[in-house]
Amino acid sequence: MAVIRKQRGNYLEDFAPGRVFRHKGGKTVNQGLFNAFTDFNFTTNPLHKNAEYARLHGFEGLVCPPGLVMNVVFSQTVEDISENARANLEYVDMRFGAPVYIGDTLEAETTILAVTPSTSNDDRGVVHVFTAGRNQRGEVVIAFERKVQVWKRDVKAKVEDAQLEKRPAVECHPVIPLYKTREHYAPKAHLANPDTYFEDFTPGDVYEHTRGRVMTEEHIALTGQLDNTSQVHSNQFLIEQNPEKYIGGRLIIYGGIPFNLCLGLSCPDVWDNSPADIVYTTGRHTGPLFSGDTVFASTEIRDKRDYPGRADLGVLVTTLRGHKFRKPKEGESGPQKVEIFHLEREIAVHRRSHYSA
Amino acid sequence: MAVIRKQRGNYLEDFAPGRVFRHKGGKTVNQGLFNAFTDFNFTTNPLHKNAEYARLHGFEGLVCPPGLVMNVVFSQTVEDISENARANLEYVDMRFGAPVYIGDTLEAETTILAVTPSTSNDDRGVVHVFTAGRNQRGEVVIAFERKVQVWKRDVKAKVEDAQLEKRPAVECHPVIPLYKTREHYAPKAHLANPDTYFEDFTPGDVYEHTRGRVMTEEHIALTGQLDNTSQVHSNQFLIEQNPEKYIGGRLIIYGGIPFNLCLGLSCPDVWDNSPADIVYTTGRHTGPLFSGDTVFASTEIRDKRDYPGRADLGVLVTTLRGHKFRKPKEGESGPQKVEIFHLEREIAVHRRSHYSA
Amino acid sequence: MAVIRKQRGNYLEDFAPGRVFRHKGGKTVNQGLFNAFTDFNFTTNPLHKNAEYARLHGFEGLVCPPGLVMNVVFSQTVEDISENARANLEYVDMRFGAPVYIGDTLEAETTILAVTPSTSNDDRGVVHVFTAGRNQRGEVVIAFERKVQVWKRDVKAKVEDAQLEKRPAVECHPVIPLYKTREHYAPKAHLANPDTYFEDFTPGDVYEHTRGRVMTEEHIALTGQLDNTSQVHSNQFLIEQNPEKYIGGRLIIYGGIPFNLCLGLSCPDVWDNSPADIVYTTGRHTGPLFSGDTVFASTEIRDKRDYPGRADLGVLVTTLRGHKFRKPKEGESGPQKVEIFHLEREIAVHRRSHYSA
Repeated sequence: MAVIRKQRGNYLEDFAPGRVFRHKGGKTVNQGLFNAFTDFNFTTNPLHKNAEYARLHGFEGLVCPPGLVMNVVFSQTVEDISENARANLEYVDMRFGAPVYIGDTLEAETTILAVTPSTSNDDRGVVHVFTAGRNQRGEVVIAFERKVQVWKRDVKAKVEDAQLEKRPAVECHPVIPLYKTREHYAPKAHLANPDTYFEDFTPGDVYEHTRGRVMTEEHIALTGQLDNTSQVHSNQFLIEQNPEKYIGGRLIIYGGIPFNLCLGLSCPDVWDNSPADIVYTTGRHTGPLFSGDTVFASTEIRDKRDYPGRADLGVLVTTLRGHKFRKPKEGESGPQKVEIFHLEREIAVHRRSHYSA
Repeated sequence: MAVIRKQRGNYLEDFAPGRVFRHKGGKTVNQGLFNAFTDFNFTTNPLHKNAEYARLHGFEGLVCPPGLVMNVVFSQTVEDISENARANLEYVDMRFGAPVYIGDTLEAETTILAVTPSTSNDDRGVVHVFTAGRNQRGEVVIAFERKVQVWKRDVKAKVEDAQLEKRPAVECHPVIPLYKTREHYAPKAHLANPDTYFEDFTPGDVYEHTRGRVMTEEHIALTGQLDNTSQVHSNQFLIEQNPEKYIGGRLIIYGGIPFNLCLGLSCPDVWDNSPADIVYTTGRHTGPLFSGDTVFASTEIRDKRDYPGRADLGVLVTTLRGHKFRKPKEGESGPQKVEIFHLEREIAVHRRSHYSA
Repeated sequence: MAVIRKQRGNYLEDFAPGRVFRHKGGKTVNQGLFNAFTDFNFTTNPLHKNAEYARLHGFEGLVCPPGLVMNVVFSQTVEDISENARANLEYVDMRFGAPVYIGDTLEAETTILAVTPSTSNDDRGVVHVFTAGRNQRGEVVIAFERKVQVWKRDVKAKVEDAQLEKRPAVECHPVIPLYKTREHYAPKAHLANPDTYFEDFTPGDVYEHTRGRVMTEEHIALTGQLDNTSQVHSNQFLIEQNPEKYIGGRLIIYGGIPFNLCLGLSCPDVWDNSPADIVYTTGRHTGPLFSGDTVFASTEIRDKRDYPGRADLGVLVTTLRGHKFRKPKEGESGPQKVEIFHLEREIAVHRRSHYSA
């Protein structure tokens, strides 16, 4: 008769370049999840709100926003890849593919690209992975790399510094419905802001998005709805037994939530005449988020480009930054801004010449 | 290079009688939203719970309750009409039309009826508007007037006191499926209370609805799910910087939530043998609601009338009042009742002679 | 003119063996409810997550887990059976039948089996009931007995000790899709854990499920979504007026929530290669749960048996226990484990020989 406490998740020694993980679970996007994530983050893009508008724009129905797609796929990798992580270092080259609709089932597969033991600490190392998420038709909906700092199971274990020569060849480009005519889109153009077309943006401008949103203990349920059961988000008792061990000494909010919230907060200013996000070149959680914190965001327009093959669209090259405020310490005056999220983000945007009424 | 903080919403000077706003967004009612709103408010009408019962009663499926319809349409008007409001004064003549089902997309349009600058304070005035909500087939699902006290952008601006001669001619009557036979409805009559038929009510009686429900910080997510991003409901940091400026010095709960909750609390006593609400003649938020407050409600039966053209139904003319309690101040004894909501409400109700088993 | 406060629910005197209650409401399972309940409890069985997997396994779509089915049906009985209960004593012989899918409508019917006035206290007694839940096709989805301690309306009332000779003959067996071939299931076998097949379990072993989850005030909304309006879960004001009268002096969490949560916590270790729960022989809430408590669970494997008529399945006979911790009192050292839930549970489990890749 044994008492068994299953340990799931992998340590640094378990990863080797080329190893492939076909992650457990999968997830069918249901309307409950769509409602919770599309709306809590203050998204205003009518593609994510209004099925008539979405169909007019050539989609099959309400479109799942990239933040939700990212969360559904990313969460499936957590147990295998970052269960024993010390820190989630960076998202790299996150690209979006086929649109995702309510009722689609997304499954995820990860290939280990590189393992790099730390040269300064022998109890950890960095794992560099590539993940692709596909729908039930086998179409790629998202593909991204991630770098995670992972603990070793045994500090004395020898882990080889190794990497694949190149990452798997997985095609992933936004699939945006073909352009029709200006008259086709005009009847519903009023459903989005009139000043967020491609022509309205100037490189160098910074939009301080005016809205903020406090996150409450709701984060626990939201994280569970993504099937992310990581204990630092949901096990209050665990934290209480040893608060010094955990950042902030309290439950920390899963990073996918501020990721999603910052995208939503940017919406009314830069994202509501947009059919798709193209790529997040790099992303980092630069500060922690806790229940009771109010999240704010800003978008810097870094560049504008044509969209290859699409005269009706342009590409905005932006930096999205999320922040919160902490109380001043002695000697400081007024609330102190703390950055929590950083994302280099390219967005496909409608041209007024082609879409406005 | 500019730092841009978009200001959305209008001030008193921006409104003129006859101006029409085709509001942004629109909203497809999904099952997540339906679940959150239909159930949080303790609704017991089986039309909103049980699709088999709803279809037996001639509807296409689960019916969205009037509180949800009101919230989905009203929220779409908030940015254009009341973003810079000092107070939401009154709902007037709120009428319900075609039934709303899950999957329907509702869009909203508002016409300015009158602008009345204040005679005592030169920094504000009252805007009187008319809003119609339509589904994807162009059918009117709700139509109502609203009076809002709005700030001026510039106290020195001269605003004319003006009004339309008459409001837009928009037909809006409840669309209630045709009556079949008593035998048709009897098999599922037990799913509603046996003592809430038209014959059971006596003008003059007051029902103190026995249930109460505390509202928690869940209100933030519920309000976001309606796409209402008004900062006094969700930006904790904003309040903390200047608590004296905000009622209660804390986040205040969006009025649509107690509106919805009081309707739900009335359900087991007056509303579970009802196919539709007809009109809310006038409605006011008479007191604020905060996280941690428990909401109660009462319904006064003021009159009973026949339903024109429908021998199977009657009309209950009621007053719905919502209240909470505050702690006693010095000199007072016991918790003090505070009214928070007042609604003159006419309900269509089944006659026992036609519907009971 | 009367002031009316409707009292709903029954007292001991109102129950007599043989009396049948056709409960009010009914409930169509929508995706919002499915999302909230299937995900908050950390379920990992892909039948409840991934519609492609569910269909591959012969189901029509996402399967509602037994905890959700139990909650939807049980909640419909609360007003008639336990509105005036002093304590919910025991679930007995809870059996699962036809699978439940999103969109199904469940209705409930209860027969009183026995009434036993207390011999030691003349103000209460035990009511023993049998409830069956059926879907819109009339198929039984769940059937269970329950014992509840109920208050008398009048302590002087004479209540007869009586019982039915036998309970209603209602067939209820799990309906599990027919087995196909190992090759059929293999492509998606990786979506569940590789070590939770029937062959992997040894009678005598105890699995301490490694995850815990704190429950927050979210319980109020979750309980409302089940149409359970029992005031001890939602009326904060009621508790504040008389805290000594209520267990813990605060809102208590509805038992269906830890019931559901413990089932979910067991999932990764014993339940993710399982097509159905068969029977819960007995279940009891052995301790209270409050907002802020972290819930843990363990499963003891008591026995293994063949599944009659199904070579591809086995039966695990288990005991599921839920617990939390309380702070130590004087003289105690370290957090003290408090059991909150106890369930004797038989689970149908896939055999590796028939299902693994």
